[in-house]
Order: sequence, then C-alpha cells, then structure tokens
Amino acid sequence: MTYCVGLQMDRGIVLMSDTRTNSGVDYISSFRKLYHWSVPGGRLITLLSSGNLATTQAVISKLEERRKAPGERHNSLLDAPTMFQVATLVGEVLRETIRESTPSDTPEASGTFTASFILAGQIAGMPPRLFLVYPEGNFIEASEDTPFFQIGETKYGRPILIRAYDRRMSFEDAIKLLMVSFDSTLKANLSVGMPLDLLVMEAGKFEPLHLRRIPEDDPYFRSISSGWSDALRRAFEELPDYSI
Amino acid sequence: MTYCVGLQMDRGIVLMSDTRTNSGVDYISSFRKLYHWSVPGGRLITLLSSGNLATTQAVISKLEERRKAPGERHNSLLDAPTMFQVATLVGEVLRETIRESTPSDTPEASGTFTASFILAGQIAGMPPRLFLVYPEGNFIEASEDTPFFQIGETKYGRPILIRAYDRRMSFEDAIKLLMVSFDSTLKANLSVGMPLDLLVMEAGKFEPLHLRRIPEDDPYFRSISSGWSDALRRAFEELPDYSI
Repeated sequence: MTYCVGLQMDRGIVLMSDTRTNSGVDYISSFRKLYHWSVPGGRLITLLSSGNLATTQAVISKLEERRKAPGERHNSLLDAPTMFQVATLVGEVLRETIRESTPSDTPEASGTFTASFILAGQIAGMPPRLFLVYPEGNFIEASEDTPFFQIGETKYGRPILIRAYDRRMSFEDAIKLLMVSFDSTLKANLSVGMPLDLLVMEAGKFEPLHLRRIPEDDPYFRSISSGWSDALRRAFEELPDYSI
Repeated sequence: MTYCVGLQMDRGIVLMSDTRTNSGVDYISSFRKLYHWSVPGGRLITLLSSGNLATTQAVISKLEERRKAPGERHNSLLDAPTMFQVATLVGEVLRETIRESTPSDTPEASGTFTASFILAGQIAGMPPRLFLVYPEGNFIEASEDTPFFQIGETKYGRPILIRAYDRRMSFEDAIKLLMVSFDSTLKANLSVGMPLDLLVMEAGKFEPLHLRRIPEDDPYFRSISSGWSDALRRAFEELPDYSI
C-alpha cells in the first residue's frame, strides 16, 4: 500500500508521500512515489503515485519519454498549455498503461495493475491546481468544498485532516498536520513506511519552495510522533468523564 | 457498513456498536447489532454483528430457536459448557447461514452474504472471554497482545484506540474512549450512524452492569464530539512547529 496526500492551501500546495512498496510481507522495498518537473519561471508539476509499482513507474517513464521526443513535445508535461491538459495527458497515459498490462482474456486481472495519481501544478499566469487522476483516466479537481486529496491507505490519517486542516494555514502548520496524519497511518498499517517525501509549492514560484526526504530518525518527525501520543492522551484526559 | 468494538478490560468487557445499515445510499435504516442473553448467576453472552443484515439476523434467530428447541438445548448459547463451545456454535451457525444463502452455481456471490461477529461472554466459574468469529466459522480469542477487536469500518477509529487504550482503565474511561473512536468514524464515514448501543460486562456479574442506547442528541456524546475537536486542535497547536 501507500499513503499520499495533497493539500491545497491559500498560499500554494503541500504534498507528502511515503515510500514503501510491498509485494507480500516478505518483499518490502522503498521506492520514490513523489516526482516533480520544473521550468524556472514557467511551470512546476508534481505527481504522487499509488498502486501497482510497475504501472506507476511505466507511467512516469512514458511521461518522461514524451517530454524528450521531439515530435510529441507539444503534448508533454512541460508543454501542455494548461493544467487541465496536463491532467488529461496523465490520465491517458495511465489508462493505456493499465490496459497494456491486462491480458484481454482475463478482464478480472484489471484490478491487479491499477494505480492512481495526485497531480499538482502551476503554469505561469494561472493559479496552482490540484487533481486526483483515476485508473480509468478521468480526474477530479480540488475545490473549496474538497480542498485536499488522499490516495492509498487513507482512512487512519483522515480524522485529523478533517478536524485540523484549514486552507489558510501556514505551510509550516500544513507540514506539521501531514506529519501527524502520516504518523497515525504508520502506527496502524505496516504497508505504509518511512522515509517520507515532502514538497511545498508556493504559488507563483516555479521551483519547490521546500523539498525534503524525511528519514525514520528525523528529529522533528520523532518529536511529532512521540509528542502526539502524549498530546492525545492529555486531550483524552481533559474530556468530561462518563458516569455509569 | 458498521462499526463495532469489544474491549477486554481487567474488570470485564466493554462493547459498543452503531446501528446503521444501508443498501445503497438511498436505503438507510437503523437496526440493532448488539444482542445479549443472560442467566442470572450463570452466564452473560453478548454478540455484535457486522455484515449482510439478512445473514446476521438469520444467525441470531437460529441461535434463539436452538435455545428454545428442547432437543438441541444441550448445545445452545445458554447451555454450552464453555465460551469456547459457544464460539464454536456461533461459528457453525454463521458458516451454515452464509452457505445456504449462496447459490451453488455462483460461488462469486459468497462475498455478498458474508458477516462476522464479536462474541463476549462469561460463564460462572470461568473468566470473561472475548472472541472474533469469522464468516468461515473459525474464530480467534483476545489475548494480552491483542486485547480488543473491531469489526466493520475499523480504520478511522483505530489510531485513538491504539494510543489511549489500556486494559487497566476504568469502565468509565473505556466508554469515553469508545465514544471518541466512534465519533471519529461517524465524522468520516456516512455508512456508520447513530444511535449507538453500549454494554458493559463486569467480571462475575451475569447481568449487564450498564446497558444503554446513546441517541444522536445525547448530551454526553455531544460534549465528547465537540470537546474532542477542540482538544485535538489544542493538542495539535501544542506540538513543536516545523520550520522550512
């Protein structure tokens, strides 16, 4: 499994992913699931992937190849004129890749090679936009009502996002919130694992404002992880007592 | 969906369930999922159900019928000599019921009629025991290492259980903990709904120490629900700040 989140903020977009992939419990490895492309002054595009690793790596490779192939460059990540068209492109490549991997005589295998992406980006002259791209190739965009997307193992880390997220938060608070959400997921589910990848896109900047890998022994992450346990217990104790 | 939890405590067992069932989003109703049988001085048995409603209701009805049928009474909920044998009985009835509902020519439908149970009980002279009964009819028992069971929509409410549960807690604290866990689930998932059913079994008492339906407008539940949001936000603010 995987856990990835993209938060739309007033000031930009904050993205975090884990790096664990597993095929059974005895074949666990670490792979990057956060990719970004930037054109200084022109655009910054980020993809977070969840699902079959062969599928997501093939999608990234095809997007890369298309970017370099002279004939197709007009329709690549770095040349599509709008984020809507970038999302359409990612969706098309994803759908094709899943279809190619699935033997036509065993349609029930289609679930095996499925994947989905969170796409975030900004093209100069337009605001930053955040999308969720489905295995079928279609996609939805974040809005005032649904201002963040999660993919993968989303449930453990969702309650704190629902309660504490606010799009007016500072980037620093948004990162703190993501660390709490990831810590809850990591504590509950072995298929999500450290290190974490973090990328902050500030509106109007076409390079990551902040890009980091957070290792297991990161002092800040450790302080959040242990601090949150204590803070939760204190919060729990503060609640009014039940009487039988 | 459903959310049910059984917590083994030093002093007994605390159980909570929601009451929502839905078949599609436009057919939502409220059904009891917590059942108990008691023999004063002899035994107290509680079942919490999750899964297909026709299956779980049939299982309860069959267990009831068997209890009343003179010929089979030696092997009923109220006559089986140990909790292990009660769990075996529940598992057998569950497996049979699922098998009867599933057309033999469409084995893929078997998932449709699936269900599982949390079984808690105490028989005089023996300690209280807590089991999780699977659709296949087999079961596991709670232990020092795994002292609580959840069934249904388990993920949203799990992080707080993992962090705050302690088997030495008072019953009152255990109820408070369950309310927080249920509130997190209710806030995240429409298929889990109020009212909640609560039952407390105290070791050595063969009637429920406390048995209540908690309605949507219950003042204590409301105070937990809003208090927890505030407490979480305060806990979050207390955590050390990230700096970019």
